[in-house]
Amino acid sequence: MTSNDPGLETLADARSSTTGLPRTLCAALPETPPGRQVRIQGWVHRRRELAALTFLVVRDRSGLAQVVVKDPAVQVPSEETTVDVVGTLTADPSAPGGVEVTAPTIRSLTEPAATPPVELWRPALNTSLPTLLDHAPVAWRHPAQRARWELAAATLRGFRATLDGLGFTEVQTPKFVASATESGANVFEVDYFGRPAYLAQSPQFYKQQLVGVFERVYEVGPVFRAEPHDTVRHLAEYVSLDVELGFVEDHRDVLAVLREVVAGMVAGIHTYAGPAVERLGATVPEVSEEIPVLHFSEALRLVGAPEDEPDLAPEHERALGAWAREEHGSDFLAVEGYPMRKRPFYTHPEPGDERWSNSFDLLFRGLELVTGGQRLHRISDYEAAIRARGEDPAAYAAYLQSFRHGMPPHGGFAIGLERWVARLVEAANIREVTLFPRDLNRLTP
Amino acid sequence: MTSNDPGLETLADARSSTTGLPRTLCAALPETPPGRQVRIQGWVHRRRELAALTFLVVRDRSGLAQVVVKDPAVQVPSEETTVDVVGTLTADPSAPGGVEVTAPTIRSLTEPAATPPVELWRPALNTSLPTLLDHAPVAWRHPAQRARWELAAATLRGFRATLDGLGFTEVQTPKFVASATESGANVFEVDYFGRPAYLAQSPQFYKQQLVGVFERVYEVGPVFRAEPHDTVRHLAEYVSLDVELGFVEDHRDVLAVLREVVAGMVAGIHTYAGPAVERLGATVPEVSEEIPVLHFSEALRLVGAPEDEPDLAPEHERALGAWAREEHGSDFLAVEGYPMRKRPFYTHPEPGDERWSNSFDLLFRGLELVTGGQRLHRISDYEAAIRARGEDPAAYAAYLQSFRHGMPPHGGFAIGLERWVARLVEAANIREVTLFPRDLNRLTP
Repeated sequence: MTSNDPGLETLADARSSTTGLPRTLCAALPETPPGRQVRIQGWVHRRRELAALTFLVVRDRSGLAQVVVKDPAVQVPSEETTVDVVGTLTADPSAPGGVEVTAPTIRSLTEPAATPPVELWRPALNTSLPTLLDHAPVAWRHPAQRARWELAAATLRGFRATLDGLGFTEVQTPKFVASATESGANVFEVDYFGRPAYLAQSPQFYKQQLVGVFERVYEVGPVFRAEPHDTVRHLAEYVSLDVELGFVEDHRDVLAVLREVVAGMVAGIHTYAGPAVERLGATVPEVSEEIPVLHFSEALRLVGAPEDEPDLAPEHERALGAWAREEHGSDFLAVEGYPMRKRPFYTHPEPGDERWSNSFDLLFRGLELVTGGQRLHRISDYEAAIRARGEDPAAYAAYLQSFRHGMPPHGGFAIGLERWVARLVEAANIREVTLFPRDLNRLTP
Repeated sequence: MTSNDPGLETLADARSSTTGLPRTLCAALPETPPGRQVRIQGWVHRRRELAALTFLVVRDRSGLAQVVVKDPAVQVPSEETTVDVVGTLTADPSAPGGVEVTAPTIRSLTEPAATPPVELWRPALNTSLPTLLDHAPVAWRHPAQRARWELAAATLRGFRATLDGLGFTEVQTPKFVASATESGANVFEVDYFGRPAYLAQSPQFYKQQLVGVFERVYEVGPVFRAEPHDTVRHLAEYVSLDVELGFVEDHRDVLAVLREVVAGMVAGIHTYAGPAVERLGATVPEVSEEIPVLHFSEALRLVGAPEDEPDLAPEHERALGAWAREEHGSDFLAVEGYPMRKRPFYTHPEPGDERWSNSFDLLFRGLELVTGGQRLHRISDYEAAIRARGEDPAAYAAYLQSFRHGMPPHGGFAIGLERWVARLVEAANIREVTLFPRDLNRLTP
């Protein structure tokens, strides 16, 4: 993992020994004085038997360590077997990290592991997507695959740290909702004690209600979409990073917070996942002080699309991404002002021209990463918007309580975690960066 | 909120003004020089009209501020209306915090708010549980109610910081699972693209598989239980704080990490929710260096229960809680060695006496807060345990992949967030501390 793993000497590690010799993590061996007896624990990453000796590479959460076995009486377990190794730390400039463990005693912690379905010891994980997904619990052990999730985990740390620093409160909202209305199209239905309930497509309604309580809230959690299409960028369940804040002037205040959040995610990656970035050769973006903003109508003109086009097609987004890079040197571009008719009913219109909305998408390298904007905040506007859809505001009674009893102008956004990581590492399919993806066809492993 | 709110001067706040005067949070007013023009924004918490003047208390995320209106021409909006107030900051020793805003210009940000269903301005929220729950979006605005969730949010920060510091990796695992088997009894069934799927009762199987990848993992997320009973301590959906770690000697290593985690949760509360603790008069526990541990058989003897009792009844737990306080001065007591027949099939038995298990419960003030223990790690043990239940290991194929391909001795635990907060604030019903509770009868708001 990371060389600055803060858990290099910890609790359970210190006790995990029957002989009293504490465990040393692999990454800490180069800083340990040679000549010492050391104990390492991990998986047999690679076993290479030569005529006179056997090389054993042990993998633990911190990295790899080389063990040299010269005694032919010492049994070297099969790859992926978990082992406890005690031996002498020996300097060897040709070994990775300049040290290796010699004259080892090797104890297997289980029966021998079966041959893994993918070759984990090879530098690159060359396997088809179906094999990768069918064998996810094992395939994720590959250091290059694992590094992808390390980017995700570091992103979450950076996301939360930024928002904690800006006075946001973390919330956890229910995933069971009472009506499909609340959640939009493509919802999953649940048998809820004999009656129907639905799985939340987003925490949208709840995060708004909680702006009424905390002003500034965020949530990290699963959202559920019964996407009937099998595409490389959709999942039936994904991790949504949701933010909502009150007392804004308009969506530009929301964009300003989004800029800080994305910068914080990037900072989190640099701080906590530097080695993962290096291993993957990922190009982590720089986030400029101000993210360039383009109005939707302007964006259409720029890509040569008809001016009554209601949305941006993927090829338009790609063209805009290229434009932002060329004109502004930016990996990010915010497009604001999407047509009202394509946005959800709670969207705040653009003052002065109600064809457009105070909403935005953030494109990251030409791919939609974030959707957000200002929401309506007056109860009368909600009632009118719901009636304009031919619906009865009474169907939204629980949601509308907050607006009836006083809400500030507010807005927010949602970031798809897997989409972010996929774009960072240029994965062709979002499933490659999802721990255990769920889609139209896949429910296991 | 907290007086050490790190977001006292932030982004959107600084811009949220048409006149250019930036917003000041209420909690920052006492440190602002009197005589200045200030802008505050928030909800009308209380409006008190006297003969010659009107007192207006404004509530924002940081706290309350008093505004004095002497000009009879100034309209003071109804309670809970959101407002933008510009006036002169004036020292007044009799005002809360020693300052108040005088000669204000008050701008309502919406139409007047309807009278709230609960009296939010009263120091205590005296309302029945059904009213509280039916009007949750508004009731949570009450500073005392809101303080309860502040304890939860601070707990999450402390939980994650502790585990990040110990080399754990955050994971996000799927909530859709393929079989009810995987999830245990009382599962919710979902219509998953025309076939049945189930909602995960816990991330147990996934966190174990990810120990195979990251060694040490944690997850904070919703879990779903179709609890057919309507009790004060069960919910259909709650927030589970899950931890799992590899390369342990036995469950005592897991308990050592649990001790650190609980201490970190307590530290989080002190650091981030001091004012909430004070407002609630909550007694935050101290966590001793070692949490006292009692064997299950010992615990039965202590409470005078028959020695073949398979579990601890709530009154036993209460008695043990009292005993731990009296004998050890501790709010926490770990009971280890629960009978194997009452624990899930993946539980590791006690070496030498397989009636008992290497599992534990952590009681907090006499209430079960955490369940955990060591798990099996050998594929042969899993196959035997599954067959002993009369089941076919093939039904667990996805899960068993990890064990077939090498897993370390490992264990973990799960903490129920709402149960923790309920016990901290001595809430009679877990629903009082859950933002939007879901149970047998309740799906809204």
